[in-house]
Amino acid sequence: MDIQIGRGKPARRAYGIDEIALVPGRGTVDPAIVDTQWHIGSITRDVPIIASAMDSVVDVPMAAALCQLGALGVLNLDGIQTRYANPIPILERITSVGNHEFVPLMQELYAEPIKPELIEQRIAEMKSHGAIACVSATPATAIKFGHLTHACDLFFLQSTVVSTNHLPAPGVPPLDLQQFCQSMPVPVIMGNCVTYEVCLELMHAGAAAVLVGIGPGAACTSRGVLGIGIPQATAIADCAAARETFQAETGRYVPIIADGGLVTGGDICKSLACGADSVMIGSPLARAQEAPGRGYHWGMATPSAVLPRGTRIKVGTTGSIYQILRGPAALDDGTHNLLGAIKTSMGTLGAKNLREMQQVEIVIAPSLLTEGKVYQKAQQLGMGK
Amino acid sequence: MDIQIGRGKPARRAYGIDEIALVPGRGTVDPAIVDTQWHIGSITRDVPIIASAMDSVVDVPMAAALCQLGALGVLNLDGIQTRYANPIPILERITSVGNHEFVPLMQELYAEPIKPELIEQRIAEMKSHGAIACVSATPATAIKFGHLTHACDLFFLQSTVVSTNHLPAPGVPPLDLQQFCQSMPVPVIMGNCVTYEVCLELMHAGAAAVLVGIGPGAACTSRGVLGIGIPQATAIADCAAARETFQAETGRYVPIIADGGLVTGGDICKSLACGADSVMIGSPLARAQEAPGRGYHWGMATPSAVLPRGTRIKVGTTGSIYQILRGPAALDDGTHNLLGAIKTSMGTLGAKNLREMQQVEIVIAPSLLTEGKVYQKAQQLGMGK
Amino acid sequence: MDIQIGRGKPARRAYGIDEIALVPGRGTVDPAIVDTQWHIGSITRDVPIIASAMDSVVDVPMAAALCQLGALGVLNLDGIQTRYANPIPILERITSVGNHEFVPLMQELYAEPIKPELIEQRIAEMKSHGAIACVSATPATAIKFGHLTHACDLFFLQSTVVSTNHLPAPGVPPLDLQQFCQSMPVPVIMGNCVTYEVCLELMHAGAAAVLVGIGPGAACTSRGVLGIGIPQATAIADCAAARETFQAETGRYVPIIADGGLVTGGDICKSLACGADSVMIGSPLARAQEAPGRGYHWGMATPSAVLPRGTRIKVGTTGSIYQILRGPAALDDGTHNLLGAIKTSMGTLGAKNLREMQQVEIVIAPSLLTEGKVYQKAQQLGMGK
Amino acid sequence: MDIQIGRGKPARRAYGIDEIALVPGRGTVDPAIVDTQWHIGSITRDVPIIASAMDSVVDVPMAAALCQLGALGVLNLDGIQTRYANPIPILERITSVGNHEFVPLMQELYAEPIKPELIEQRIAEMKSHGAIACVSATPATAIKFGHLTHACDLFFLQSTVVSTNHLPAPGVPPLDLQQFCQSMPVPVIMGNCVTYEVCLELMHAGAAAVLVGIGPGAACTSRGVLGIGIPQATAIADCAAARETFQAETGRYVPIIADGGLVTGGDICKSLACGADSVMIGSPLARAQEAPGRGYHWGMATPSAVLPRGTRIKVGTTGSIYQILRGPAALDDGTHNLLGAIKTSMGTLGAKNLREMQQVEIVIAPSLLTEGKVYQKAQQLGMGK
Repeated sequence: MDIQIGRGKPARRAYGIDEIALVPGRGTVDPAIVDTQWHIGSITRDVPIIASAMDSVVDVPMAAALCQLGALGVLNLDGIQTRYANPIPILERITSVGNHEFVPLMQELYAEPIKPELIEQRIAEMKSHGAIACVSATPATAIKFGHLTHACDLFFLQSTVVSTNHLPAPGVPPLDLQQFCQSMPVPVIMGNCVTYEVCLELMHAGAAAVLVGIGPGAACTSRGVLGIGIPQATAIADCAAARETFQAETGRYVPIIADGGLVTGGDICKSLACGADSVMIGSPLARAQEAPGRGYHWGMATPSAVLPRGTRIKVGTTGSIYQILRGPAALDDGTHNLLGAIKTSMGTLGAKNLREMQQVEIVIAPSLLTEGKVYQKAQQLGMGK
Repeated sequence: MDIQIGRGKPARRAYGIDEIALVPGRGTVDPAIVDTQWHIGSITRDVPIIASAMDSVVDVPMAAALCQLGALGVLNLDGIQTRYANPIPILERITSVGNHEFVPLMQELYAEPIKPELIEQRIAEMKSHGAIACVSATPATAIKFGHLTHACDLFFLQSTVVSTNHLPAPGVPPLDLQQFCQSMPVPVIMGNCVTYEVCLELMHAGAAAVLVGIGPGAACTSRGVLGIGIPQATAIADCAAARETFQAETGRYVPIIADGGLVTGGDICKSLACGADSVMIGSPLARAQEAPGRGYHWGMATPSAVLPRGTRIKVGTTGSIYQILRGPAALDDGTHNLLGAIKTSMGTLGAKNLREMQQVEIVIAPSLLTEGKVYQKAQQLGMGK
Repeated sequence: MDIQIGRGKPARRAYGIDEIALVPGRGTVDPAIVDTQWHIGSITRDVPIIASAMDSVVDVPMAAALCQLGALGVLNLDGIQTRYANPIPILERITSVGNHEFVPLMQELYAEPIKPELIEQRIAEMKSHGAIACVSATPATAIKFGHLTHACDLFFLQSTVVSTNHLPAPGVPPLDLQQFCQSMPVPVIMGNCVTYEVCLELMHAGAAAVLVGIGPGAACTSRGVLGIGIPQATAIADCAAARETFQAETGRYVPIIADGGLVTGGDICKSLACGADSVMIGSPLARAQEAPGRGYHWGMATPSAVLPRGTRIKVGTTGSIYQILRGPAALDDGTHNLLGAIKTSMGTLGAKNLREMQQVEIVIAPSLLTEGKVYQKAQQLGMGK
Repeated sequence: MDIQIGRGKPARRAYGIDEIALVPGRGTVDPAIVDTQWHIGSITRDVPIIASAMDSVVDVPMAAALCQLGALGVLNLDGIQTRYANPIPILERITSVGNHEFVPLMQELYAEPIKPELIEQRIAEMKSHGAIACVSATPATAIKFGHLTHACDLFFLQSTVVSTNHLPAPGVPPLDLQQFCQSMPVPVIMGNCVTYEVCLELMHAGAAAVLVGIGPGAACTSRGVLGIGIPQATAIADCAAARETFQAETGRYVPIIADGGLVTGGDICKSLACGADSVMIGSPLARAQEAPGRGYHWGMATPSAVLPRGTRIKVGTTGSIYQILRGPAALDDGTHNLLGAIKTSMGTLGAKNLREMQQVEIVIAPSLLTEGKVYQKAQQLGMGK
């Protein structure tokens, strides 16, 4: 807090993932013996990657494929999967309209209400496909339909910004997060947040894990629309500090999931080094053949009837979800074989497990515009090849 | 002042709106109960947005439409509205010439003198349309025609840089700001300024509000032509500090209006968080169907006979002024539903009113090229779609 | 010197002209009464602008035109004007070859030796045209032909980097700067340098003015080729400090001329604010109808037989030298009416004369890519329109 | 370590070559008498430049040509030269496939095993061509085939990151670097590393020179794929400090070779100023007519079967290796006559030899997009002319 942007207006410099780089230490480890296991609730996973709860990323078959590969996928209960019994033609429409028709179409499609029976059906489908059934809902949906989700394995209570101290409009019942956690028979993951204080409060309210990240995502325009957006390296480090405080106070270790703005294996590695236990990613997985988005990716704030945010990006289809998560890579830009990238990075940095990876040395380095990011920005703008 | 750019040459680091971001605190508020009211003179408005006194943004019908929506629009008494009884064909010419003919045409059109009778006529028209009659004039015009404007509601005395200590050329009568304020039967808003000292002096001279911002605007090239231009986050914060000092000294609260360089809802939210009470914007409103600029926007220093500044930008027409101010948004880039963006941002940040919004936490964040700004830059360069 | 780029490797942060902006103070001055006079040797000029000693910028008629307008132009004695009796067809060849043939052609053209009689002839021509006869030569040329230049008014001894402590190759006579100054019957301006120490030494050696700037110029690629290049705001401020020290020690005021990288009126204003008494500019003047470069501009290190530096840029022809220096401007990008820009900037900043302009407040501001600079870079790369 | 990117997460600011510039001191030296000699093992070279051990840069004739010009070239024993008796048709395939087929082709070509007899044959060929026989191998290859390389002159043990403390997979024999150095009858150069500690350990393990640089290279995407990459100015300065410490402790001077990301003569000069004794460069030499890459350049991590990194860049062919190293330059962008650039830079900076060049003043300067780097980036993106 030692910078003054003006008289009496202190501000802290926050750092983004693009502004940091990792420094090899004195030892190296063979990637073959690096351990990438992590735990969430009573579940153990080998791949510290969760697919975002987005229409374009996760449907039932994708969730099953991700679980088989050691990762997780979260189905969004506020999305088209619970509004339409058959989402296939809906996805076809979303991915075939022009850029100018996209926002109005999304607003129209989301005018269709959520069907309670589809919530239960999707969870049952995930279980029958052998998936760990992860679902997400906004606080409003959680109040209305939370009781229909008790068959799931992990419940993600997720909104742009979550707080334990919400002032509702008159007549609108607020969601008491602590009470909600206690009422749910399954672990509740909560977010998103970006500060030490809120992260600690969410853990005290009973969060089984905390999602970290506001505004840094590729398909998110919160910073442009609302002025809100915290550079992700700082957000992760602050919330990781809250995790350590919480463990020191309670003996419980609540994992931190970095969510938003992560595009390459390098971004994931840097998030882990900042202190994350796992990452939630969308656009890199939307490029899988199996992704419901068919080569497109869009944000979940887009369908807002009054203030749509987020854009539809043509991300293309570059390989199978197997290739993207476990390789071998056919691309050299850091978007294939993400687990291999994590293991190679950890080995190169001398980190035997994720706990050691959270302690590797970081430098602040001049921002590097990677090819992938320039392409992505150009595609957002409808320019380029 | 702790940086030395060279021996004995101290300089302060100033921050732009693009370099900051807002951080959610421990609480959130339902946007439906957020209060965005602000006061200027004895007038109260629900929307803290004023349309710039520019040919391309405000004419009489636009001023009326803005007032109906809870905002304000200022008619420029130095522009074409007071030089031409019928500005329609003039606007047609301005928006149909090529880029190379633009500056000479503007210089030609402004060679036509200001007509005193048109000043009185435009004010009367605004009143008869039900608008709060806001007009602006440069100091030179204010000296000559100020007495004709007494029927207006708010008078904006505005030049690139205003000071209480102006050294005139011999034989040119200077404008005594304090005396002018006292002579006017209506509140006088003064600017622009960027420093604590000048802002405080303008308040002591009787300003009913102070316009803050020199050089950061989209259609302004002051920094390129004159080397002058203060990053807006710092300018707002410094002038907001002057407002607090003035209130402590006199008990009077004089609002600060951030003027220049604000393009998206996020920019407006960040200006409020830096300490502004309201913003004055041009290019976002020039994109309204109702705007006189017909999809173009240009600066008011452009017609200068000797040193034109500012460029004409094709901003396009993207919706009605209703949509731009109050939504629903059909675009997801932060340029529609600006009031909705302010309320959502305030709610997300836990600010119940503008006074609390002025206190939210700010971080310095790596500059983010938003889609809108890339487009704008590309359009300035004649590139893009 | 408080930054360490590595262990035991201190480095100072230096600032470029693009990184600063000027801040209006508490007063303003009518531009009509602003005084822009400066002195060099016994000569007084109203316009603090000198045209660079470059083939593409100054020939005899251009030097005369510049002097009539209150400025100065320097004829390069190492360029084509003294190698060819009739430079017209030579300039035609230089400006008509393709980009790939440019460097070899320049190397071929400069293989032609300098003709002693042309040195005397050009100086006489300048005088007969009514110009103040300013000529420049490298140290090597000064040794050989300095005695032929005694009829000139100002002699510019100029190389990329000049020092009072040069270690020559065996058998090569070094130039003793102090002795050279004493041997010349006219004032000798020396440069370029960038540091306080060297600037002070040049003044003690007898410099009538010092040129400041290494590596920042548009047509210069010293930083890319040699790694050498000092951001100009810092270089000017440091050398201005040397000027003050020298005046305190000797009572003599030796002006500082900022040379290199200045493109717009804003750049010139910022150089003056950093402490310069005057600027030397090339590319902005190469755009004059009268310029010998016919819409092209190129560096004087380009013809080097072994290590050519600098590129040929198509700058275009945008108006007369009168318009460029004294307006009225037909362009709004800061490249027309440079004197008007200086006066308006000074008035806006409250500086009544150049001495006060050297003291105005400076802020460090996020770099602004002006339209002109993007175009220029694109043109250098052969891209763009 | 005084920056906190988040609570309890310190990070150091590291600097890249593009962020610094060199400052002329009080003296200058005629480039003709500047001494650029350096020593590696018992070998003395006039040109402090080593060609990278890459398929696209060094084959036997190229190594011989480089040695004749006073430089060195390293043949990669893990590349196509030791997998294929006749590499000509292989290079033809690599340089003729499309961008999408490139990575799979490289993976296919590298499935062919290394042939022990080709290792001995290539070393013999280098000797018979009159070259100083420099070869490189990864640790794994060194273990298997190190004993076949005893006829070479310099052995480069090189991997992305080398450490003296490697934790191998069970059953995989680790390479003891100290033991390996002692077992080799020729000097062993080791790398790459980026920190003071590891550099010092490599010297104590017996390194005859240390390669410095991880992640900054043009054909390297380590930072994107793995998050690893240290800005080169800081890495060189830190490792140069280790060299000084080692010399103070042992009396032995072990040179530092800056490897990666250096494109122009200016980059090389800046590396030397940061403390390097020599540089290893790839892409600038891949542009030679004699280069095996035929106008293309690609990284050695590309053929990885599981995690390919690095891209193939079309660098073009711009002249002979003689022109690139010793001029005369036909290009003015800093990529021709690299030795001339070093000598001119040293002379301009007043450095009589490399030891003095390591001490010249450095400033941190705003990053400058040089023409070469813009081209390179544009080419990577498939844009440009």
